[in-house]
Amino acid sequence: MSTVDKQLDELQATIVDELPNDISVSDVTYEGPELVIYTRDPKKFARNGDLIRNLAGQLRKRITVRPVPDALTDPATAREKVLNVIPEKADVSDLDFHADTGEVVIEAAKPGMVIGRHGSTLREITQEVGWTPEVVRTPPIESSTVSNVRSFLKQEREERRDILERVGRQIHREEMADDEWVRISTLGCCREVGRASFILSTPETRILIDCGDKPGSDDAPYLQVPEANPLNSLDAVVLTHAHLDHSALIPLLFKYGYDGPIYTTEPTRDLMGLLQLDYLDVAAKEGRSPPYDSAMVREAVKHAIPIEYGDVTDIAPDVKLTLHNAGHILGSSVAHFHIGDGFYNVAFSGDIHYDDTRLFNGAVNDFPRVETLVMESTYGGRNDYQTDQADSEEKLIEVINETADRGGKVLIPAFAVGRSQEIMLVLEEAMRSGKIPEMPVHLDGMIWEATAIHTTYPEYLRDDLRDRIFHDDENPFLAPQFNHIDEGDDEREEVAAGDPAIILSTSGMVTGGPIMSWLDHLGADTDTTMVFVGYQAQGTLGRRIQNGWDEIPRNGRGRSNTLNLEFDVETVDGFSGHADRQGLENFVKTMNPRPEKVLCVHGDESSVQDLSSALYHNYNMRTFAPKNLETFRFK
Amino acid sequence: MSTVDKQLDELQATIVDELPNDISVSDVTYEGPELVIYTRDPKKFARNGDLIRNLAGQLRKRITVRPVPDALTDPATAREKVLNVIPEKADVSDLDFHADTGEVVIEAAKPGMVIGRHGSTLREITQEVGWTPEVVRTPPIESSTVSNVRSFLKQEREERRDILERVGRQIHREEMADDEWVRISTLGCCREVGRASFILSTPETRILIDCGDKPGSDDAPYLQVPEANPLNSLDAVVLTHAHLDHSALIPLLFKYGYDGPIYTTEPTRDLMGLLQLDYLDVAAKEGRSPPYDSAMVREAVKHAIPIEYGDVTDIAPDVKLTLHNAGHILGSSVAHFHIGDGFYNVAFSGDIHYDDTRLFNGAVNDFPRVETLVMESTYGGRNDYQTDQADSEEKLIEVINETADRGGKVLIPAFAVGRSQEIMLVLEEAMRSGKIPEMPVHLDGMIWEATAIHTTYPEYLRDDLRDRIFHDDENPFLAPQFNHIDEGDDEREEVAAGDPAIILSTSGMVTGGPIMSWLDHLGADTDTTMVFVGYQAQGTLGRRIQNGWDEIPRNGRGRSNTLNLEFDVETVDGFSGHADRQGLENFVKTMNPRPEKVLCVHGDESSVQDLSSALYHNYNMRTFAPKNLETFRFK
Repeated sequence: MSTVDKQLDELQATIVDELPNDISVSDVTYEGPELVIYTRDPKKFARNGDLIRNLAGQLRKRITVRPVPDALTDPATAREKVLNVIPEKADVSDLDFHADTGEVVIEAAKPGMVIGRHGSTLREITQEVGWTPEVVRTPPIESSTVSNVRSFLKQEREERRDILERVGRQIHREEMADDEWVRISTLGCCREVGRASFILSTPETRILIDCGDKPGSDDAPYLQVPEANPLNSLDAVVLTHAHLDHSALIPLLFKYGYDGPIYTTEPTRDLMGLLQLDYLDVAAKEGRSPPYDSAMVREAVKHAIPIEYGDVTDIAPDVKLTLHNAGHILGSSVAHFHIGDGFYNVAFSGDIHYDDTRLFNGAVNDFPRVETLVMESTYGGRNDYQTDQADSEEKLIEVINETADRGGKVLIPAFAVGRSQEIMLVLEEAMRSGKIPEMPVHLDGMIWEATAIHTTYPEYLRDDLRDRIFHDDENPFLAPQFNHIDEGDDEREEVAAGDPAIILSTSGMVTGGPIMSWLDHLGADTDTTMVFVGYQAQGTLGRRIQNGWDEIPRNGRGRSNTLNLEFDVETVDGFSGHADRQGLENFVKTMNPRPEKVLCVHGDESSVQDLSSALYHNYNMRTFAPKNLETFRFK
Repeated sequence: MSTVDKQLDELQATIVDELPNDISVSDVTYEGPELVIYTRDPKKFARNGDLIRNLAGQLRKRITVRPVPDALTDPATAREKVLNVIPEKADVSDLDFHADTGEVVIEAAKPGMVIGRHGSTLREITQEVGWTPEVVRTPPIESSTVSNVRSFLKQEREERRDILERVGRQIHREEMADDEWVRISTLGCCREVGRASFILSTPETRILIDCGDKPGSDDAPYLQVPEANPLNSLDAVVLTHAHLDHSALIPLLFKYGYDGPIYTTEPTRDLMGLLQLDYLDVAAKEGRSPPYDSAMVREAVKHAIPIEYGDVTDIAPDVKLTLHNAGHILGSSVAHFHIGDGFYNVAFSGDIHYDDTRLFNGAVNDFPRVETLVMESTYGGRNDYQTDQADSEEKLIEVINETADRGGKVLIPAFAVGRSQEIMLVLEEAMRSGKIPEMPVHLDGMIWEATAIHTTYPEYLRDDLRDRIFHDDENPFLAPQFNHIDEGDDEREEVAAGDPAIILSTSGMVTGGPIMSWLDHLGADTDTTMVFVGYQAQGTLGRRIQNGWDEIPRNGRGRSNTLNLEFDVETVDGFSGHADRQGLENFVKTMNPRPEKVLCVHGDESSVQDLSSALYHNYNMRTFAPKNLETFRFK
């Protein structure tokens, strides 16, 4: 008998002891980090709301209760009863019964009303029909990504359960090592921006954190180093957020033989899928052969185990993971690892924004314990201070008003995920409060889809924004000004010929995508203003235009065909998803507890050196500016 | 066709082009780092002494020429002719013909006379009989180790050739990596003394340097770290010297699947075999089960590829190794690695003695290039200054004279390898020059055998000592005073009852071995003096006696049986095989070129910190005091 089976037998005995006599336990298994209790008496379980909570506290495990099949009301009858229990205002769009696990997945526009106060409605459902309800939100804006992911996961349910069971046994295996230490290996993003990737290891466990590409380069993380190999021996992959410089090469891991879990937030899982498929698409369009195909993206999605901010999750015999809001993009996380039984704690900042933005609360920097922080340094340079967001907004409003006054359009190249939604919130408020006239805001490229994903997960947005969406039915993303450009170039031509309007279009650095068409339509229009709201990297067309180029070549339309740009060009910074130098320092300064050591990564050579030296001098901590391919040992 | 075969074909074509038309080339192969040319015309080859040297220079390879079998004179006839060519004074003790390689191994008391001026006698032999001569020294003192190693290697000749061919192809494989970097991983001996072990790696190659045990502890090097695994993927093991804290666990590598070469000097190979077998012996006597058995020691010896000081040797497609005298013990080396084509250079000091001693020249610190030095720090502490050797010798002589004057014996616990031979040289000279009276010097334990190995390899001893042995027939180790205690306790009793004498006996820290018998025989003798000449570690009986204990328990002779020590106890330091703090600093200060970075290892926490900080402040270099389990990246 394996030690995991022995452990489960003992857990079952304890659970039987703890439960009232009239509640039976048929089986106890692991699924991923969760302990699943099978019972013939789901209704009795549901009657006592504290039972599960008390068991979870006592066993220090996350617990799910599942009915055995013959304790279930038949689906047809159950459907009716479930719909009777749920208030009509919850607006249920789908009910899906899974006899294998006794779960009913309820998709509703208002999940909160399906859950009820402290879960009371959920318990009522179980008491009525025996099934265990699982609630998901109907995206307020239809999202093909979300619906594809959901239907794919539904189709792969059985394999997914096998994966979860395997992972669960892996997590709860017996510890073998008689030694204790913690190491971090740098596989990328050291003294550079891009290809984020680290290995966190103990004698027992190896975890990969992030696996991104490097924009403007073919350099991949050093996945071939021994510390990461063989890849199929990794216990877990943790993804801090969906941006490609952190996620692009995650599917590659599956091609190379990895077959384990990816721990991340639910929105990051969906955004990752969206961005990775776009990554393949862009590569194909540019005639490059991408390192993996879409089947590997599906593998990644299938192996994702979503965890919520703040939930302490066992991911290995000696490692507990907790994700915290990082304030950078939807679902972005600071990843905190608790190693051993109080032995050591490491936090990886991922990309962070320290101050609140319109979209997100500022990054969390409060932990039970943390000895070492691995810290992003994108704007860590001594002069990397950004304009205050309020001033930036004022300037943007001014530019829009001037342009609208002369009957022109405002063309904003923007990244689909994060910056676009932030600007949308600024525009919606400015129109609502009358600071700019009401006019259409056209969203082109992936922006609409990315926005739809944002509205699916309002829990991950800033408190007051979430509350507006939850309670007041005032979802700003649903404002009537926002129009999805979904009819191609004809629609663009019509917009270009029409009244004043604002256009948000990808790509954010004018390196391809629909923004290229907008240049054709509006480039020669002297009434139009192009406004840069995000960082333009060296070598991009965006950077050139920003620097004053006004003659740009048009490919594929005859040899000497150039486009003369006659629109105004403005730059409004201050909308970055990254903390600036002050924000980075503040994150560390107010961090609780203050870490002993900081590794400054994810920044140009001078940025990491500047930040490392400043943190050392100002806060008297040991700081490092690692190179790629190094391994640090802690304790 | 493999790339190695292609490369060999091209080499053969070039060689044919370069050679005079009347010299045929039948085949060209690799054996370990050497390029072997098979020819039907060995005699013609031998006629022109420059041919091989010119080819070697042009091809930048070490070259061996071998006759094909039908070009050979039959062994019976050849034996006579060979003995005719060699001057009688060379004193040939064995001739051994190997038809498979066309080699004749000549064992002679005076190898220099077999070689002749610039190899003239060797060439004459080949011209006469076609065979390629290989010369080894007849040990002036019979050494069972040397004779066992030689007969074992003779018996394993065929397998050894297979190994060498495999290693040769491995070394000359095509380089696959398109990246360049250098990493050093610390597997042991960081902030501690013992279990020396490092991995030097490039994208192409991984090399293990040393693999020792930790005296007084069961801690082995961290061989399980990914940087070292799988062990069978290592390209090479380099052994700096034979002491067990550098060599004890080398045989374990073969048990764990390693099957590649061990590069080291010839005396280190033999001493390593001697010490490893003793290590197994001691473990068995103490009732511990050692981690490997003697078959693995034989594997290690079989896989050893001896290289000489100063010979630049290809050990991987991108790595050249050169060993240099380290001055510490017989065959001890500073290992210099040249990586890539001028890309980077790393030197590992191993254990060093900076100043000349009687036995050895001081450590070499002159290199074509070196950017990083990995440096021992045993005596790196701020107060680790040793007594000058001349003063130490004077004090030893004084103690001996006083003891002899009162008719007593001088009992010196000593390490078999290194310290004993140094003391022997001091005693021999003191007697020869009349500073102490002539009296017997009894050598007990492994000292005699270790001395025999020293006399087998006079090339590795200090210049003037080597010259005395070579030219003047004044081998001090053959002085008649030296007596091998080889008849056990009766002989000891006789010595103890006899006239004044000096006794050198293992173990060096009085932790077992024949020194225990000597305590019985002489402990109660008030005329005797026990003299400590080496470091006595905490917890050893030697340290206790040194500190004044005069009642020691005698095991197995009744419960309350104790031995009262009534002899005098003296300590004479200054005979260490390690550089002291001044020597370590001098090694770095006079190093040519001065390295950019120094990793201070192989010392207690405070010693490495002190040395690291001193080198940083005094010589303005980047210094580190690594922990075990770290990986540094250079370039």
